[in-house]
Amino acid sequence: MSKNLTTRAEDYSKWYNELVVKADLAENSGVRGCMVIKPYGYAIWEKMQAELDRKFKETGHSNAYFPLFVPKSMFEAEEKNAEGFAKECAIVTHYRLKNDPDNKGKLIVDPNAKLEEELIVRPTSEAIIWSTYKGWVQSYRDLPLLINQWANVVRWEMRTRLFLRTAEFLWQEGHTAHATRQEAIEESEKMMNVYADFVQNFMAIPVVKGLKTESERFAGAEETYCIEALMQDGKALQAGTSHFLGQNFAKAFDVKFANKEGKQEFVWGTSWGVSTRLMGALVMTHSDDNGLVLPPNLAPIQVVIVPIYKTDEQLDAITGQVNELVGELRELNISVKFDNRDTHKPGFKFAEWELKGVPVRLAVGPKDIENGTYEVARRDTLTKEIIEKDGIVIYLENLLKTIQSDLFNSAIDYRKLHTTEVNTFEEFKEVLENKGGFVSAHWDGTPETEEKIKDLTKATIRCIPLDQVEEVGKCVFTGLPSVGRVLFAKAY
Amino acid sequence: MSKNLTTRAEDYSKWYNELVVKADLAENSGVRGCMVIKPYGYAIWEKMQAELDRKFKETGHSNAYFPLFVPKSMFEAEEKNAEGFAKECAIVTHYRLKNDPDNKGKLIVDPNAKLEEELIVRPTSEAIIWSTYKGWVQSYRDLPLLINQWANVVRWEMRTRLFLRTAEFLWQEGHTAHATRQEAIEESEKMMNVYADFVQNFMAIPVVKGLKTESERFAGAEETYCIEALMQDGKALQAGTSHFLGQNFAKAFDVKFANKEGKQEFVWGTSWGVSTRLMGALVMTHSDDNGLVLPPNLAPIQVVIVPIYKTDEQLDAITGQVNELVGELRELNISVKFDNRDTHKPGFKFAEWELKGVPVRLAVGPKDIENGTYEVARRDTLTKEIIEKDGIVIYLENLLKTIQSDLFNSAIDYRKLHTTEVNTFEEFKEVLENKGGFVSAHWDGTPETEEKIKDLTKATIRCIPLDQVEEVGKCVFTGLPSVGRVLFAKAY
Repeated sequence: MSKNLTTRAEDYSKWYNELVVKADLAENSGVRGCMVIKPYGYAIWEKMQAELDRKFKETGHSNAYFPLFVPKSMFEAEEKNAEGFAKECAIVTHYRLKNDPDNKGKLIVDPNAKLEEELIVRPTSEAIIWSTYKGWVQSYRDLPLLINQWANVVRWEMRTRLFLRTAEFLWQEGHTAHATRQEAIEESEKMMNVYADFVQNFMAIPVVKGLKTESERFAGAEETYCIEALMQDGKALQAGTSHFLGQNFAKAFDVKFANKEGKQEFVWGTSWGVSTRLMGALVMTHSDDNGLVLPPNLAPIQVVIVPIYKTDEQLDAITGQVNELVGELRELNISVKFDNRDTHKPGFKFAEWELKGVPVRLAVGPKDIENGTYEVARRDTLTKEIIEKDGIVIYLENLLKTIQSDLFNSAIDYRKLHTTEVNTFEEFKEVLENKGGFVSAHWDGTPETEEKIKDLTKATIRCIPLDQVEEVGKCVFTGLPSVGRVLFAKAY
Repeated sequence: MSKNLTTRAEDYSKWYNELVVKADLAENSGVRGCMVIKPYGYAIWEKMQAELDRKFKETGHSNAYFPLFVPKSMFEAEEKNAEGFAKECAIVTHYRLKNDPDNKGKLIVDPNAKLEEELIVRPTSEAIIWSTYKGWVQSYRDLPLLINQWANVVRWEMRTRLFLRTAEFLWQEGHTAHATRQEAIEESEKMMNVYADFVQNFMAIPVVKGLKTESERFAGAEETYCIEALMQDGKALQAGTSHFLGQNFAKAFDVKFANKEGKQEFVWGTSWGVSTRLMGALVMTHSDDNGLVLPPNLAPIQVVIVPIYKTDEQLDAITGQVNELVGELRELNISVKFDNRDTHKPGFKFAEWELKGVPVRLAVGPKDIENGTYEVARRDTLTKEIIEKDGIVIYLENLLKTIQSDLFNSAIDYRKLHTTEVNTFEEFKEVLENKGGFVSAHWDGTPETEEKIKDLTKATIRCIPLDQVEEVGKCVFTGLPSVGRVLFAKAY
């Protein structure tokens, strides 16, 4: 197959868009800003879901499901949250179509079927969930509530890009309620750590854990924890957020509990989410000009085996040997595909699986059968080795682990190279322009300075790292005193 | 805990509504017609999903995800389908709220943010999916397309009931495309059989497989296969449908392929779905006046163990013995809960787990520790036995299997008792009124007769059973000739 993929050096953004479509991850739909997640892309998302879901349950959470729609009066109850999402939400106003009297076969909205109250398609579910929690919480015995939802949400973004920013996207949203401030803060931190653990060890993407500044905080939160990743083009991507909501939603929806002393108190809340945006981060962290590169933990196919043959007898001999190997690999839960299609040549197959990022490719021809070998190719390094068939199962099992950690280490190396401490605004601009990446700089702590820097450079404060070192310094822009560096970057 | 559950004899409908809420399956939300699926209910739905998903993949299907919204012009492309859903759909007309100038803190729809084309919230996804398939199918090599989606859909029902009929519900919808009519028909039948297999062997609900009559067919289908179940109150419930779509959607969306001879042909389609409605069927097939009865295959907790003790030492002794058992049961993938809450008495716990339908309850007190026994109670039969702790693991494993098949057999017995062959319209009405259930009768095959019978009795033709016996007879209503009996019933 011919790939015709734009290279990253030519046009990173174009490379990304083409790759997502050509590797069968997703495509634009006939609905403005909404994507179709294709089976191969969805299979990766399912692997993410399964692992995250396992981690959520392990940390005591249960899944539930809440309505897609939020009545306007409920939506506006928590004012800051409403303000944050009001400008980009899909609104249902009618509940019936009727035949167009002027146009046979066409339909129009029936003006007699107007809703009494408009419904907002959920951009996030705090409002509908906290309005429900009111009925679920009476006493401290009902707390904590530890609930997660897998759902679709809609935010009417004007400029959309597959996975990175779409009008509808898939995500999970955790919503918890606690008896004390401290417990809610601990929950927010715990879930940030769950996300970091998943993204680093499963997706092989290194992240910085930190706090958002006030202006980047979730609308309605007291504090937003985040994990920030760095893409190959030097731009940052917010990979997950976990919010400490204080008592904001409890107050907006009057969710109180009787404490052990019998006194009524408002409960404390958190919410946390990751979305199909992570698919974009996956592509932009590991892939190359030949196509996707998938970490083995997320690859729907971890090992593909391509037979090289001219005669049916040759294929028979190969098939016999391969079937044995396939069985042994599956016993180890390694997902393997024997690509014995007779409609395509080996070269086409090699290119296809390379494009789709299968971590390990085995080729086997008559000579290999004779010699008792396989040709083993790594997708990440594009290197090949001849491996004897005795012992290949253990070899492959280890190779997959090696690839998983090599990908993470490469990404760590890239990030180290692209994290720069600067002490003047000249340096700041110079690094941003010529090198990109995270710029670690002192900041005076005011939203005004943050805003001005953003206007001048397009860089935002990605986070105040949790491992920030105390260091007396001067704001890179105003020269005012600062107690530690924060991370700036241009971001997705 | 006090249950205060209305009995089935008093008011079946009230019993159902109360039970769904009290057993923590679901509740009504603040959004008209939309429900909240609570964690315990969702855990059952997750078990259904997991098993169905496994079966879909085993039969060669992949999951994907398509947009929530359908532009109006796309929605109306397949006329019959559009007509079928136009009268009950949620319509998005605007994409922004703004501050209400007359009412501080309130929001109104921004009239300047009207969509150019209205978006329908999907009531089903044929339109959006077939508009996508157009881009995916060029040649016979691209076929079959075997795709499933797990999603939420919205149908603006005026009278809603938890699980049975809600404005928003969760479901899966399979959408497949094939090169030949025969292959598409085989797919529709295969998926009906997958559903029947799941509902009977996993949910312990017997079903009749059959075909819908023209007037009960899916809007846009050439043939609708269905599985019909019978509830305890003698009403039928459609548990799943599988549609042979002919070339209707292929023609509406111009989906053609080049066959092996290079000629362009329209593809053949199917679609098939089951929904959270199955939760309603589950409740109404097995449960009783004490609460839920869950088949072990679907029970989030299969075995609950309640300690009976007065002193801490007693509890310690019990805990030691129970922990061992819990470990052994988990190794067999039996989900078990040791309910050692010190906030509730055993009687409360017994009632709670009875209400929630846990199939097997073990009680263990100091005397049992002495004697090396457990008291084992079955939820379905409400019977108790004393079982020696040696060998109890195998005993429980077998007991769960027995309960699963006993539940199915009871439901089969009920259905046999409530399926009546009638030969006159007097009998027909008499049976429907006094006994309910399936009424097996001759019908002249016309929609007019079907309609008249429905008007007079509220009974509809649930299906033309696939195992219909050829039998010359006369229509129970018109006396016109008929070649076999069909199943009538009042239905949910």
